Amino acid sequence: MKISGKHYHTIWEKENDPKTVQIIDQRLLPFEFKIQDLKTIQDSFTAIKEMWVRGAPLIGVTAAYGMYLGLLSLKENANLKNQIIDHAKYLESSRPTAVNLKFALDLVLEKISCAKSIKEKTELAFETANKLKADEIENCRLIGENGFPLIEKISAAKRGETVNILTHCNAGWLACVDYGTATAPIYLAHEKGIKIHVWVDETRPRNQGARLTAYELEQEGIPHTVIADNTGGLLMQKGMVDMVIVGSDRTSANGDVANKIGTYLKALAATDNNIPFYVALPLSTIDWNINDGIKEIPIEQRSEDEVKYIEGWHDNKITQVRLMPENSPVANYGFDVTPAKYVTALITEKGVCETNEEEINNLR
Amino acid sequence: MKISGKHYHTIWEKENDPKTVQIIDQRLLPFEFKIQDLKTIQDSFTAIKEMWVRGAPLIGVTAAYGMYLGLLSLKENANLKNQIIDHAKYLESSRPTAVNLKFALDLVLEKISCAKSIKEKTELAFETANKLKADEIENCRLIGENGFPLIEKISAAKRGETVNILTHCNAGWLACVDYGTATAPIYLAHEKGIKIHVWVDETRPRNQGARLTAYELEQEGIPHTVIADNTGGLLMQKGMVDMVIVGSDRTSANGDVANKIGTYLKALAATDNNIPFYVALPLSTIDWNINDGIKEIPIEQRSEDEVKYIEGWHDNKITQVRLMPENSPVANYGFDVTPAKYVTALITEKGVCETNEEEINNLR
Repeated sequence: MKISGKHYHTIWEKENDPKTVQIIDQRLLPFEFKIQDLKTIQDSFTAIKEMWVRGAPLIGVTAAYGMYLGLLSLKENANLKNQIIDHAKYLESSRPTAVNLKFALDLVLEKISCAKSIKEKTELAFETANKLKADEIENCRLIGENGFPLIEKISAAKRGETVNILTHCNAGWLACVDYGTATAPIYLAHEKGIKIHVWVDETRPRNQGARLTAYELEQEGIPHTVIADNTGGLLMQKGMVDMVIVGSDRTSANGDVANKIGTYLKALAATDNNIPFYVALPLSTIDWNINDGIKEIPIEQRSEDEVKYIEGWHDNKITQVRLMPENSPVANYGFDVTPAKYVTALITEKGVCETNEEEINNLR
Repeated sequence: MKISGKHYHTIWEKENDPKTVQIIDQRLLPFEFKIQDLKTIQDSFTAIKEMWVRGAPLIGVTAAYGMYLGLLSLKENANLKNQIIDHAKYLESSRPTAVNLKFALDLVLEKISCAKSIKEKTELAFETANKLKADEIENCRLIGENGFPLIEKISAAKRGETVNILTHCNAGWLACVDYGTATAPIYLAHEKGIKIHVWVDETRPRNQGARLTAYELEQEGIPHTVIADNTGGLLMQKGMVDMVIVGSDRTSANGDVANKIGTYLKALAATDNNIPFYVALPLSTIDWNINDGIKEIPIEQRSEDEVKYIEGWHDNKITQVRLMPENSPVANYGFDVTPAKYVTALITEKGVCETNEEEINNLR
C-alpha cells in the first residue's frame, strides 16, 4: 500500500545487496518514516522481539528471512544441522504467541533439509522466504476478495449510506506485507467506491491502532476516526457500528481467536448489540493442534513499562512520559482469547466460514 | 484519606479566610501535589469544567461553594433573583452529565430562597455547601459500611485468600470528599484486615485510574495493579477477578448506570464470566426522572485533544505528547450507559439493592 503516495511492502531485499533485508521501522510510525537494514539473524530476532516489525504474517516472513541471514553466517562443519535448529529455536523465542512464526520456521527447516551444501541451503532459505512473502501478499489479497461481499451487503442494505466498521489494533498491511488482513476488505471496498468509515481503537498499551491503523488509513485517504478502547461499546449501543473486523495472532481449530488484548471485550459488545464480528486471517494463523483456545493458547506477558510509560511526539522527537505513580505495579498481558461463539465468521484466503470445527476444517 | 500520611478532604474552606475555598488540583496528580484557591464563581466553574476537581459528588460540593462565592460578589439590586438564577445556570453548564451538579445547585437555590438580605443568602449558601460536604462524607462512609459485607462474604468463601476487585476510573475519595464511593468498601475491608488486591483500569483517555485511583491506593498502602483498559476481560476469563465495583455519574430510576466510558464493556465481561458487578453511589446520583438510561441520559462529548495527546511526567515536569497522526480525526465520548440487567446491585448509603425500579425506589 502507499506511504506519501509511493507503494511499499513491509519487508524486501535491499536493491543491489541481496545479503541485506530491509524493513520499515514501525516503532517510529506515524511520527517518522525510517527504513532499517537487517544483516544478521540477531537483527531479525531484535526486529521481532522489539517490535520493529509486528503482526503475525510479517513476523513469519521476517523470521524466514532471519533463517536466511543466519545461514549466511554459518560455515560447513559437523554440527551444522544442530546450529540451524538452534537458529530456529532462537527466532521462535522472540514472540511466543504468534503461530505464524513457528509455521515459517518449520517451512524453512523442511525446505532446506535435503540440500547438501550450505550454499544450497542458503539459496533455498532465501527462496522460501521470498515465496512465503509472495504467499502472504496473495493471501491478504484473497482475504480482501472474500471479505468484500460482507461489506457490500451491508452497504446495499443501507442503500449506499456509509458502512461503519470498527477495528482493533493493527491488522493492516503494516502487520502483513501488503493489503493487511482485517483491512484488506476495507481497502477493496474503498477502491470499489463503497462509502465506508472506520472506527479505530487506539489499542493500549502500545497504541498500534492510533499509531499504525490510523496512519495506514490516512495515507490511503479512507475516512476514519480514532477512539479510546473504552468507546466501542457505546458506539455499538447507539447504532454507530455496522460490523467489526479484527485480525488474529492465533486461532484454535474450534475457532477461538487469540488477538490483541481487548478484542474479547469488543466481541462481547458486538454480540450484545447484534453486530457481526468478523476475524480476518490467513489459514496459517490457525493452530490445528489446539481445540480449546481459552485453555491452551499461552498469553504473552510483556514489560510493565509498556503500560507505565507511553511514547509520543513532543518537540519534534519521540518522547516517553510516565503515566502513573512510580511505585504502582503493572500487569501487561498482550492478548486475550475470544470464544468462537462470539465470532460471526472467519474471513480467510480460501473463503468465509462460521466458527465451528467442521466448517473451519473444510477450508484446510 | 491520607496523602503522605496526612489526612485531607478534597475541598475545604481556607484557614482564617472564609472567603476562599481550597481544593487539591487533581490535574497535576500523581506527579505534583498542589492546593488551589477558589475565590470567585468563575474559579469554581473553571475548576469543574477543566477538571481540577472531578467525580460527581465533588462536582456537586464545588458547585455549592461556587454559589456561595458567587453571592459574595453580588450587591443588593432589583435584579438579584435573576442574577442568582444565572449563577446556577452558569455552573450547571460546566459538566452536562453529572446529575449531582443540578442537585447541589437546586439545593442551594431552595435554601437561600426565603432569605431577605444578600448577607443572609450568602451565609445560608455557605452553610448549605458545608452541610452538603458533610453529607457527602457521611454517605461515602455508609456506602463503605453497606458494601463491606459483600467483600467479607467473598473473602470467607475463599477462606481468607486475597479478594481481587476490579475498578474503572476513579470513584475514590478524590472524586468525593472522603472515602470515595467504589473505594469506600475497599478501604473499610483493608482497615478490617481482609486481604484484598485491586485491579485498576488506567481509564483512557484521561487516565483517572492510573493517575488517581492508583495514587489513592498507593498512599493508603493497599495492594493494587494498574492495567490497560483492554485487560479486564482476560483477567475475568482466567478467574483473576472476584468482583467489580465502579461508581456512577448518573443512574436512572430503573438502574441503568452512566459511568466513565468503558464501564459497559467491563459489565459485559463480568456477566459473561459470572462475576458480580456492583455500582457504588449516593442516592443523589439517581435521576428519578429518567426511566431508560440508554435512551435518555445525554453523553458528554469532550475535546479531541484528550485522545490525541496525553500528559505524563518527563524531565521533572508534566509534558504532553501527541499519540497519533496529526490529521486523523478523533471522537471522545465521556460516558457510556450500562443496562441495569448487567448490574448485580447498587451499593448506596441506605443499603444494597438489586437494579429494578421497585427495589431502587424503596431506598428513596
